[in-house]
Amino acid sequence: MSQRSAGPEILRLIELMSRLPGFGPRSARRAALFLLKQRDTLLLPLAEAMSDAGHRIEKCSVCGNYDTLQPCAVCQSGGRDEGLICVVEDVPDLWALERGGSYKGRYHVLGGVMSAVDGVTPDDLNIPSLISRVDAGGIREVILALNATFEGQNTAHYVADQLAGKGVQITYLAHGVPVGGELDHLDDGTLAAALRARRSSE
Amino acid sequence: MSQRSAGPEILRLIELMSRLPGFGPRSARRAALFLLKQRDTLLLPLAEAMSDAGHRIEKCSVCGNYDTLQPCAVCQSGGRDEGLICVVEDVPDLWALERGGSYKGRYHVLGGVMSAVDGVTPDDLNIPSLISRVDAGGIREVILALNATFEGQNTAHYVADQLAGKGVQITYLAHGVPVGGELDHLDDGTLAAALRARRSSE
Repeated sequence: MSQRSAGPEILRLIELMSRLPGFGPRSARRAALFLLKQRDTLLLPLAEAMSDAGHRIEKCSVCGNYDTLQPCAVCQSGGRDEGLICVVEDVPDLWALERGGSYKGRYHVLGGVMSAVDGVTPDDLNIPSLISRVDAGGIREVILALNATFEGQNTAHYVADQLAGKGVQITYLAHGVPVGGELDHLDDGTLAAALRARRSSE
Repeated sequence: MSQRSAGPEILRLIELMSRLPGFGPRSARRAALFLLKQRDTLLLPLAEAMSDAGHRIEKCSVCGNYDTLQPCAVCQSGGRDEGLICVVEDVPDLWALERGGSYKGRYHVLGGVMSAVDGVTPDDLNIPSLISRVDAGGIREVILALNATFEGQNTAHYVADQLAGKGVQITYLAHGVPVGGELDHLDDGTLAAALRARRSSE
């Protein structure tokens, strides 16, 4: 866009917006205009929220969660099972488990999964700090709650190998039919896993 | 999401992000995490760009464009045809025409189109200010470059009615085959319009 039609401030806003996931130049222009039209109710509050988040939120030194507290609120909260660590790929997975509300242990956020294509090696992930937590003692079980993708399962196996012989139980999330799911819409692998892990009615 | 897993700063960022066009709660969570991971290269610069835009950009009092200058850079720039006004629905349309680079007149941004469904009446649009500009004299032609939608064309006809008898020529953008477009993919209306407006080869 030429500078005659839009000032450098708008161009910079559009350029930065276009780097957000799911945004391209066209949707960034639309979003920038949307923000300018809602200056006091959205644009300025969002600018402040971003600045606030950027200056106050940091990665938890224990588990890798994002929070303004150090260690994070989950690591500090009492009443959780100290002997149980749930390993997740990234923070949204932690949020999803917390929304569920049924898990009452600690977490460890890897910050990604190993990927030959993207050049992500174990050293790029929070795997050494997980091993240190286990080595420090007091951990009874590590749940590898990684995504059921190739990279996720590959990373899970790597982590399991690293933790082997350290006296902790390694567990995985069960595969099966999602609650409310229709058999007709499931892939063959899920259906086969659900069959293998079938339970008695009692 | 419970406050145990994410602090109020993250929740507020996600809530505001989810109001952006094309975003929902899930994509807003992804985008917020994406921003937190690129704090210094994206989150803080974007916060500053938004704050800057929010505090410095305003709507041009003449044409309705957004700029830090008042009147805007397009209204102030010399070498443009003062007698020609191109009426557009919104600022991205102005940007699109400026990217094209072939239009050298002035603009007038309506800020939307009339819509019975959305309750947008002529009074909600910058139509009175367009009439004032024409009444002030010196305008030779008004190009109604509104979108070829029902609401766009309806608004164009309303504006044309309002300007009737004021001694200005009212023109519309030509309908036809887009440059590079394939006939097979065009709708019947466009094809019929292109046929009606066919040109001699000379």
